Amino acid sequence: DFLTALKEIIPAFGASTDDLKRCRLNGMIYCGERHKHIYQRAMLHVEQVKVSKGSPLLTCLLEGPKGSGKTAIAATVGIDSDFPFVKIVSAESMLGLSESSKCARIVKVFEDAYKSQLSIIVLDDIERLLEYFPIGPRFSNLISQTLLVLLKKHPPEGKNMLVIGTTSEFDFLDSAGICHAFSVTYHVPPLAKEDATKVLEHLNVFIKEDVDAAAEALQGLTLKQLYLVVEMAAQGSTGGSSEAIYSGQQKIDIDHFYDILGDVVPIRR
Amino acid sequence: DFLTALKEIIPAFGASTDDLKRCRLNGMIYCGERHKHIYQRAMLHVEQVKVSKGSPLLTCLLEGPKGSGKTAIAATVGIDSDFPFVKIVSAESMLGLSESSKCARIVKVFEDAYKSQLSIIVLDDIERLLEYFPIGPRFSNLISQTLLVLLKKHPPEGKNMLVIGTTSEFDFLDSAGICHAFSVTYHVPPLAKEDATKVLEHLNVFIKEDVDAAAEALQGLTLKQLYLVVEMAAQGSTGGSSEAIYSGQQKIDIDHFYDILGDVVPIRR
Amino acid sequence: DFLTALKEIIPAFGASTDDLKRCRLNGMIYCGERHKHIYQRAMLHVEQVKVSKGSPLLTCLLEGPKGSGKTAIAATVGIDSDFPFVKIVSAESMLGLSESSKCARIVKVFEDAYKSQLSIIVLDDIERLLEYFPIGPRFSNLISQTLLVLLKKHPPEGKNMLVIGTTSEFDFLDSAGICHAFSVTYHVPPLAKEDATKVLEHLNVFIKEDVDAAAEALQGLTLKQLYLVVEMAAQGSTGGSSEAIYSGQQKIDIDHFYDILGDVVPIRR
Amino acid sequence: DFLTALKEIIPAFGASTDDLKRCRLNGMIYCGERHKHIYQRAMLHVEQVKVSKGSPLLTCLLEGPKGSGKTAIAATVGIDSDFPFVKIVSAESMLGLSESSKCARIVKVFEDAYKSQLSIIVLDDIERLLEYFPIGPRFSNLISQTLLVLLKKHPPEGKNMLVIGTTSEFDFLDSAGICHAFSVTYHVPPLAKEDATKVLEHLNVFIKEDVDAAAEALQGLTLKQLYLVVEMAAQGSTGGSSEAIYSGQQKIDIDHFYDILGDVVPIRR
Amino acid sequence: DFLTALKEIIPAFGASTDDLKRCRLNGMIYCGERHKHIYQRAMLHVEQVKVSKGSPLLTCLLEGPKGSGKTAIAATVGIDSDFPFVKIVSAESMLGLSESSKCARIVKVFEDAYKSQLSIIVLDDIERLLEYFPIGPRFSNLISQTLLVLLKKHPPEGKNMLVIGTTSEFDFLDSAGICHAFSVTYHVPPLAKEDATKVLEHLNVFIKEDVDAAAEALQGLTLKQLYLVVEMAAQGSTGGSSEAIYSGQQKIDIDHFYDILGDVVPIRR
Amino acid sequence: DFLTALKEIIPAFGASTDDLKRCRLNGMIYCGERHKHIYQRAMLHVEQVKVSKGSPLLTCLLEGPKGSGKTAIAATVGIDSDFPFVKIVSAESMLGLSESSKCARIVKVFEDAYKSQLSIIVLDDIERLLEYFPIGPRFSNLISQTLLVLLKKHPPEGKNMLVIGTTSEFDFLDSAGICHAFSVTYHVPPLAKEDATKVLEHLNVFIKEDVDAAAEALQGLTLKQLYLVVEMAAQGSTGGSSEAIYSGQQKIDIDHFYDILGDVVPIRR
Ligand SMILES: Nc1ncnc2c1ncn2[C@@H]1O[C@H](COP(=O)(O)OP(=O)(O)OP(=O)(O)O)[C@@H](O)[C@H]1O
Ligand SMILES: Nc1ncnc2c1ncn2[C@@H]1O[C@H](COP(=O)(O)OP(=O)(O)OP(=O)(O)O)[C@@H](O)[C@H]1O
Ligand SMILES: Nc1ncnc2c1ncn2[C@@H]1O[C@H](COP(=O)(O)OP(=O)(O)OP(=O)(O)O)[C@@H](O)[C@H]1O
Ligand SMILES: Nc1ncnc2c1ncn2[C@@H]1O[C@H](COP(=O)(O)OP(=O)(O)OP(=O)(O)O)[C@@H](O)[C@H]1O
Ligand SMILES: Nc1ncnc2c1ncn2[C@@H]1O[C@H](COP(=O)(O)OP(=O)(O)OP(=O)(O)O)[C@@H](O)[C@H]1O
Ligand SMILES: Nc1ncnc2c1ncn2[C@@H]1O[C@H](COP(=O)(O)OP(=O)(O)OP(=O)(O)O)[C@@H](O)[C@H]1O
Ligand SMILES: [Mg+2]
Ligand SMILES: [Mg+2]
Ligand SMILES: [Mg+2]
Ligand SMILES: [Mg+2]
Ligand SMILES: [Mg+2]
Ligand SMILES: [Mg+2]
Repeated sequence: DFLTALKEIIPAFGASTDDLKRCRLNGMIYCGERHKHIYQRAMLHVEQVKVSKGSPLLTCLLEGPKGSGKTAIAATVGIDSDFPFVKIVSAESMLGLSESSKCARIVKVFEDAYKSQLSIIVLDDIERLLEYFPIGPRFSNLISQTLLVLLKKHPPEGKNMLVIGTTSEFDFLDSAGICHAFSVTYHVPPLAKEDATKVLEHLNVFIKEDVDAAAEALQGLTLKQLYLVVEMAAQGSTGGSSEAIYSGQQKIDIDHFYDILGDVVPIRR
Repeated sequence: DFLTALKEIIPAFGASTDDLKRCRLNGMIYCGERHKHIYQRAMLHVEQVKVSKGSPLLTCLLEGPKGSGKTAIAATVGIDSDFPFVKIVSAESMLGLSESSKCARIVKVFEDAYKSQLSIIVLDDIERLLEYFPIGPRFSNLISQTLLVLLKKHPPEGKNMLVIGTTSEFDFLDSAGICHAFSVTYHVPPLAKEDATKVLEHLNVFIKEDVDAAAEALQGLTLKQLYLVVEMAAQGSTGGSSEAIYSGQQKIDIDHFYDILGDVVPIRR
Repeated sequence: DFLTALKEIIPAFGASTDDLKRCRLNGMIYCGERHKHIYQRAMLHVEQVKVSKGSPLLTCLLEGPKGSGKTAIAATVGIDSDFPFVKIVSAESMLGLSESSKCARIVKVFEDAYKSQLSIIVLDDIERLLEYFPIGPRFSNLISQTLLVLLKKHPPEGKNMLVIGTTSEFDFLDSAGICHAFSVTYHVPPLAKEDATKVLEHLNVFIKEDVDAAAEALQGLTLKQLYLVVEMAAQGSTGGSSEAIYSGQQKIDIDHFYDILGDVVPIRR
Repeated sequence: DFLTALKEIIPAFGASTDDLKRCRLNGMIYCGERHKHIYQRAMLHVEQVKVSKGSPLLTCLLEGPKGSGKTAIAATVGIDSDFPFVKIVSAESMLGLSESSKCARIVKVFEDAYKSQLSIIVLDDIERLLEYFPIGPRFSNLISQTLLVLLKKHPPEGKNMLVIGTTSEFDFLDSAGICHAFSVTYHVPPLAKEDATKVLEHLNVFIKEDVDAAAEALQGLTLKQLYLVVEMAAQGSTGGSSEAIYSGQQKIDIDHFYDILGDVVPIRR
Repeated sequence: DFLTALKEIIPAFGASTDDLKRCRLNGMIYCGERHKHIYQRAMLHVEQVKVSKGSPLLTCLLEGPKGSGKTAIAATVGIDSDFPFVKIVSAESMLGLSESSKCARIVKVFEDAYKSQLSIIVLDDIERLLEYFPIGPRFSNLISQTLLVLLKKHPPEGKNMLVIGTTSEFDFLDSAGICHAFSVTYHVPPLAKEDATKVLEHLNVFIKEDVDAAAEALQGLTLKQLYLVVEMAAQGSTGGSSEAIYSGQQKIDIDHFYDILGDVVPIRR
Repeated sequence: DFLTALKEIIPAFGASTDDLKRCRLNGMIYCGERHKHIYQRAMLHVEQVKVSKGSPLLTCLLEGPKGSGKTAIAATVGIDSDFPFVKIVSAESMLGLSESSKCARIVKVFEDAYKSQLSIIVLDDIERLLEYFPIGPRFSNLISQTLLVLLKKHPPEGKNMLVIGTTSEFDFLDSAGICHAFSVTYHVPPLAKEDATKVLEHLNVFIKEDVDAAAEALQGLTLKQLYLVVEMAAQGSTGGSSEAIYSGQQKIDIDHFYDILGDVVPIRR
């Protein structure tokens, strides 16, 4: 069940998933139907990969605004799959490497995975892996070509693989034909008002009467932004009140909350 | 005969064709007149190469959307030719090589082929060989020049060669004058409704009453996409039903099929 | 209290802050409500970082015209934080280094900071760190990617970090998506007339009757420009009078002041 | 006489011309007045070079669509000149070389030629020598500059040289000012209907009644394309009939011919 | 006093100024109020640097058409300052150096200057230092970044510095934000008619009646152009008369002067 | 006197001028007033350089269509100057050198010249020295910067220098600001009808009645083109008649002349 999966983080029977677990800094809570649907479909892909003969390689892409929960979902699928090989490929583990060293690293992860009967590879923040910069635009064609080949290359006979990509630069990847290189694409949306309400109820930092107004103000922001604003607001206008708020002794002052939101709002545009 | 050729994979009397056989993961079935025509014409080119004096080098290009069957057709022609030298050149076997090493490899394949009286070289996914990226666009001019020269260079006296290229980036290759470097170009289309019907009948995973509706929904997709959607749908909405479906004990639920198709549809655009 | 903080530079109990202190060549004086607000918010972030669990990395950007006081504010926050690790990363300390050496240096600063439970890193003049040049535009994508990764990478468990960036090229950073990589952005404005009045009163170099006219003429300029014009005007039209003026024995001649301002005005456009 | 020259390939008294002879895979036949005129003018240039004092270097360019006969004409002039030094410079003999190695090779050919009192150098497919790619466009400026200098540099005193260039990318060479670097330019056209008729009569593969219709269908194509289509059609729709047709026992079926032409037609566009 | 300064070149008590003196090939004469004003302001900056505490680095830019006198003014200020360290940085002393070696040289000059309590650095022809070429445009971003950092970096405590830049490519520097990196910018204009009159009277090469007409014809040209045209005209139409003219025995023929000017005029456009 | 200078090539008392003499393959004849005027002015510059004190470096540019006579004029001035150092810098002597080696060579020539009291350097075909290619456009900024510096750098005290540049790419050089780097620019035009008449009369290869018509047909072409067409026409339509024509025994057939011109005309466009 999805919700259970979200609440208690089950120890994986498969690969070591420490890296993956650190991708869910704020845990996993229910935050709307779309997120739930994506998780469920991804778990169906996990099932498909287990039994497929005609498609030894299945690839899916999670795209959506920054902080919408893409990496956390991908990590959760990897953890819940119990596959013997689950690995996340991210730019932060390749800081300072040259383009060709990055390629070599990525290829190595795939080659290691090919040795496992079932494997999942998470390509996190593909735009960052590609060294994408919107002005120009700039990007590494070397890494792009490597990914495009790996997203098509069949694993050896008898080995099946699921690749989950994440990106917040859908337009670039789309116009570059990289989306097309994935079998399926899922859009991970920002929060709708009812989603924000659910999350605020879960956090329990506002008095009941303020939840609706706060959720209204937060709609259109992403999960990560919500957590940030709440944490800033919890400080109080003179600092130091956050402990009292998280322990439930105090509630966030809605006006101070608006004030903070006003500063953070530009990130919404 | 084409259909026989498609059904039973005849052991080649010529070159070892293991690489080529792995290009036909879903086997070869009848899927419409155009595919058949292209296969037949390509086999005529095989005949022509055997006897030609004035054209020691014959080159043809298969172009069409991703998954339409280009590589599978090229591989089948290679296998059925029984030529002593048949080789596929693809980006996946050159992962991580520099531009100039790739050139050297490609040239080496041609030089090896020149030693054989009759040879076929498949240049698979030319855009990938060229390291093409649509933004910019980027591509390797070094490899482009190498291919342009090889597509024109006569084999040594008494040696004849057929080159079959495949690409899903016709517009790029055309505007780059690479199509023009091939003697003939064939368009490998996506599935028309009647083609999809044939394939679904062959797969036998829907109840008879649903085949027409399913084929209608699949039209315009390619062979590879059809196989993917069917396999995903065969999982059932709660997973695990695919074995029952492929063994014929159960049929795919058409509503679940539509549901899955809805997720995959963006790949159609 | 903000004003006290500005007037007397309190010895830091935390990291050695010599570098930071040299960023406030003209000291810190009261120069309007916006500057005060930014300082206060930044100090709230300092508090938040001390206690946060869900956001081990907090990032904020100060943007505004050249000389508006960004670096001085960032430095003051660093000094006032009393964090054990406070470091400013600026282009002037990396003069003559290659792109990759600069990356290595920047990464090193972050890695050093990760060892500290609480740390502040000031990324001063981000456009200069990125080797930005508006014609082209040119910039280092290598350094950009490094910063983009570092602005997202979580410090190790139990370590919290505040990153303060400054820039006078907001439009570039914004269109490049770098602003978006910061949690919050604050605009540091040029001087409004009442701000200029406050500063001139503090400097006490005009006779009372001239302060209003001088402030009017200076409005829209930045703090740094104000200091420059005043210093030039203090020379007098024949030179040598500045000592008398700063010691209070003499006042600046308003006409000479206008004259000087006329020469400097182009920098306003 | 031109026609004689075309029919029997006279052994050259001058340089070894094996390379050149291999450029005329389909022999030389009469195919229209323009081709004849170009050959004659080029032979006049050969005469001029023999006696010139004021122009020790004469350069002419043959431009026209792919397969129109440029290389074959240039080769024939080289062969018929009986000059002691005749050499063809083509990209295929420099496969895999770096830009600078190519330059060195080209310069070497010129230097060798300078030692000969009379010499002819054929620069075949100049666009390929320049590594020209229309997208971008890309090309080697290093090689371009080398050619531009060599096309202007006087041979040493007492040595005279004729350079014949060929290209199917006239527009590029023209806009690049390379055409201008040649003293004279000749356009080698595709086949007019009456030219095609002459060639088909010579080949004698159609019944008399079909020649006119076939020629009509072929007009606007080039010599090389005509040979290709005829050879493909000679296979017959089921393969294997070409021997009978070339030996004159059978004629090409005009409907099958149209069918084949339909496939090849895109190359006309 | 400005005029005295211009007439007799006073031996510097400060740094060796041989390099600077060679920048005033035609000496320094009175040529209009604007030139005088710029000189005076620059000397005020010299005074300011001597006493400043809040602005240890003062930077000013002289911009104007080629030959208007920028370098000569900058050199004169350097000479007249009597500072212990005065140095001109120009492209001609770095001919053949790589971009990075040029950077190293420039940085070295600044580091040497930082050791001196008072220093002046003339950055002559900044566009040339930046390897600026208007087509593209091309320029060295490496050197640009180096200059941008150096124009902002504070000298060590207790050391004060004046940087004078010159450029005839104001538009480029302005759009590149380099002008903005200077505290003040002065425009050095071409000659107005009355300026030209003054200079011609000083040169005394025309009969009194022609001075006005000649000045009229020269207006809008720069100092350097005036000197060139006068020197060419002094040759006389058959050559050899210049000695007689400079010694005052003869005067320039106004018609020959117009004739010469007509040839040189294009440089005015 | 100009005409004498043109007819008999006087042995130079100065530098060895073999290189220069080889630039006048067709000798020097009278071909119109403009050419004569340019030669005379250039010789005045030679005089000026001999005596100048205020302008130790004089630079002039000859620009005009290909073959108009620029190099021949520059060479003649160099020869007639009798300066101890006269050198031509051309791309053909630097074939195969890298950009930086070319720079080094050019700088070396100037440094050698600086040792001579009087020197002339001819920068022939500046666009070729700059490796200019109109598509892009491409060019060497390294060499451009080197030339721009050398065209401004004063020779050491007591040494005077004349630099003569030639170019057929005036528009490029102008928009690149290189023309502006020369003191004076002279346009070397194609032939006007009366100029062509003079030259044809001198050559004496037409019967008197044809000279006018031939000159009319040649107008707008350049000297070099005239020589080429005449030489080609002298061959006669069947070849071999040129000796008879140059020895005066025969005249060129005007119709054959028109015929040839028709082929060459495209070079006029
Ligand atoms: N149901 C949920 N799905 C996803 N994330 C959740 C959910 N519930 C809580 N979270 C929390 O929300 C945050 C989502 O952030 P995450 O890093 O996954 O976003 P992202 O889309 O990958 O952002 P970015 O584009 O910046 O990489 C995580 O800290 C995660 O712990
Ligand atoms: N008649 C057929 N022709 C071609 N392919 C067929 C046919 N019947 C079944 N197939 C199967 O359809 C699939 C076609 O995929 P294939 O890889 O050839 O497509 P493609 O056009 O090369 O795609 P891509 O552009 O992605 O390389 C193969 O798995 C093949 O086994
Ligand atoms: N309240 C204040 N806030 C900021 N700066 C102040 C204040 N009071 C005085 N100052 C002085 O104003 C100057 C501001 O310059 P600062 O270098 O901080 O500007 P900046 O915005 O970083 O400029 P740049 O964009 O050029 O880097 C400093 O010299 C500082 O000492
Ligand atoms: N009169 C002729 N002139 C030229 N070629 C002829 C003639 N008669 C027959 N041919 C044949 O026609 C073919 C012309 O092809 P050729 O390679 O010369 O064309 P091309 O213009 O150089 O083509 P490309 O642009 O592809 O290099 C040759 O095989 C040649 O043998
Ligand atoms: N009052 C004056 N101010 C400046 N230059 C003068 C003055 N009087 C005479 N000159 C002479 O005028 C010439 C000015 O040339 P200078 O090289 O300074 O011009 P520039 O603006 O630097 O030109 P460029 O842009 O080409 O570098 C010098 O030779 C100098 O000796
Ligand atoms: N009066 C003249 N002036 C110049 N050239 C002349 C004159 N009389 C005859 N000639 C001849 O005309 C030819 C001019 O060619 P030249 O190489 O000088 O032209 P160019 O303008 O330098 O051409 P390009 O732009 O191709 O370098 C030379 O061969 C020269 O001998
Ligand atoms: Mg993420
Ligand atoms: Mg394929
Ligand atoms: Mg700052
Ligand atoms: Mg050819
Ligand atoms: Mg100057
Ligand atoms: Mg020339």
